[in-house]
Amino acid sequence: MTTPSTPSTPQVPRVTIKDVAARAGVSKGAVSLAFNHKPGLSDATRDRIFAAARELGWAPNLTARSLAGQRVDVVGLAICRPAKLLGLEPFYMEFVSGVESVLSERSCSLLLRLVRNPEEEVGLQDAWWRGKQVGGSILVDFRADDPRVAAVRRLGMPVVAVGHPSLTGGLTSVWTDDATAVTEAVRYLAALGHRRIARVGGAAALGHTSIRTAAFDEAAGALALAGTWQVATDFSGEAGARATRSLLSASGGDRPTAIVYDNDIMAVAGLSVAAEMGLSVPGDVSLLAWDDSQLCRLTHPTLSAMSHDVHGFGAEVARTLFGVIMGDGGESHPVPTPVLTPRGSTARPSR
Amino acid sequence: MTTPSTPSTPQVPRVTIKDVAARAGVSKGAVSLAFNHKPGLSDATRDRIFAAARELGWAPNLTARSLAGQRVDVVGLAICRPAKLLGLEPFYMEFVSGVESVLSERSCSLLLRLVRNPEEEVGLQDAWWRGKQVGGSILVDFRADDPRVAAVRRLGMPVVAVGHPSLTGGLTSVWTDDATAVTEAVRYLAALGHRRIARVGGAAALGHTSIRTAAFDEAAGALALAGTWQVATDFSGEAGARATRSLLSASGGDRPTAIVYDNDIMAVAGLSVAAEMGLSVPGDVSLLAWDDSQLCRLTHPTLSAMSHDVHGFGAEVARTLFGVIMGDGGESHPVPTPVLTPRGSTARPSR
Repeated sequence: MTTPSTPSTPQVPRVTIKDVAARAGVSKGAVSLAFNHKPGLSDATRDRIFAAARELGWAPNLTARSLAGQRVDVVGLAICRPAKLLGLEPFYMEFVSGVESVLSERSCSLLLRLVRNPEEEVGLQDAWWRGKQVGGSILVDFRADDPRVAAVRRLGMPVVAVGHPSLTGGLTSVWTDDATAVTEAVRYLAALGHRRIARVGGAAALGHTSIRTAAFDEAAGALALAGTWQVATDFSGEAGARATRSLLSASGGDRPTAIVYDNDIMAVAGLSVAAEMGLSVPGDVSLLAWDDSQLCRLTHPTLSAMSHDVHGFGAEVARTLFGVIMGDGGESHPVPTPVLTPRGSTARPSR
Repeated sequence: MTTPSTPSTPQVPRVTIKDVAARAGVSKGAVSLAFNHKPGLSDATRDRIFAAARELGWAPNLTARSLAGQRVDVVGLAICRPAKLLGLEPFYMEFVSGVESVLSERSCSLLLRLVRNPEEEVGLQDAWWRGKQVGGSILVDFRADDPRVAAVRRLGMPVVAVGHPSLTGGLTSVWTDDATAVTEAVRYLAALGHRRIARVGGAAALGHTSIRTAAFDEAAGALALAGTWQVATDFSGEAGARATRSLLSASGGDRPTAIVYDNDIMAVAGLSVAAEMGLSVPGDVSLLAWDDSQLCRLTHPTLSAMSHDVHGFGAEVARTLFGVIMGDGGESHPVPTPVLTPRGSTARPSR
């Protein structure tokens, strides 16, 4: 195998920004202004510069620019969720909007792609990085033994891993402390008097789901609850509704009196299922959502939730990635742990 | 001013895919496989190809590839909305998820950027196209005399304009027939017996808002309604709540008995305002949402809405853009007109 990091001498003359400047009859700075889309050039000059670059086959080299401590134009984000589900998931919409808020301040764009599995993402990040399409990437939805860790290390590609350090193999990471948040959720419901508590969880293959599952078991054990249930889903409203229907169909003593969900959309679906089954919320069953997007304030009753600033989370991840790329302050750290926000959907059990 | 479309001869030897193939000791097809991230190469071969390309300073030229009728790797989308608002707007997330569904089938990524105004987008599309970062772009949120029309024409850049042909200056367009849909909404409410109807509209500067405003006036005039109101907003829930509060604060006879909203999130906010003011929906006031995202089925009462397939709209726009880029079937056409979906929030007026 060749060693990708070995420097070598180009075998044919390579066109540089200097050649473009000379051909356009302007300074290198003017070429840089044009390609970085900065003010200070006439339309005619911009046209001349772009024409010269096109004629010479020159395009700015993002990697070189980032290594020189200059601007990064594009960062990558691949998401491994079905397109249809993505459009319905408030988390990703708010996360991406937070990422964009920081990117747009720096005139940087987000290269977004849906992938089917982590292996496809490995190939994609490889092509993005080696093809100089991105200055770095945000990696999300880590799994146990995630193949992306070794792949981006091998490439020497700047990334921020959105996930707990136990999952991200030493990559710079930004994460939510899911274990602490799950523990707080279970303790709160137990403090209200609930002894039979269920959790409708996310996709079983994801690392953060495993962390939440283990934390739920541990918290339930420490509190010696009378009954616990955990169900894995694909995060969709439909799966949340099915899980809720199944949990609430058991007869009285075998039924949870409180359910905590791994996202908002499943909690909202659970609320509809309770209504459809003639159960009152929170009279017959307490429901606790996760993420606390606007959905939680729009339902009737409003949904209690584990609340965090998902927009701010996305912004913090983007800022950390710039730190990694620029070699300036891109260190691993958690974002604030979700906090319990009680609203109308949780109360003491009636029996 | 130089003429950007004049062909010219490069002044220095340009590195081609042939040079990369020769240096790596493989066929041109193998280089293409590596950069298009296709199976069939060993890791060692891929490494050798990427090393050769890097050493020669070669990267695939997206424009050339698209002109050759081959794959396009990246298409662009700039959105001129505040980041925070974008995260709360179901329309754009579903639209983007629809675009991604078609892009991911073709191993193509979306270059996404938030901009502050159309002028910033003009500069951005210019830099994207001339810097060969995209094979084409999707343009949204057209205004009267939109500066993007002349700009992309001058560049000869393949685009699809998401907007009515009256706004898009002859660019290939895909649009929703907003005038017909508004007319249907007003006629439906009038048929229920409503004579005082308000519309809480979107941003006044947007072309599709103007189309809806004119259609509302025309429909109201044709039906000789007793009272009409139209309010412009920024599409946010807060603005929708403010507009609803103001409309419903008037005394009985000066108050609308039905309100139609330009998106879902404002209708949901309107529902909360009615509850806060002690007005029953639909008893005291009927509310009609627009877009019909999942939100409309999650509220209590559920929201009647002008319903369309926003995910499918995004997918159709992406397919049309590929048609434009490939010179194969990218013609202007409307998507299906939103249809009325009555649910629990509309009824005959009680007075």
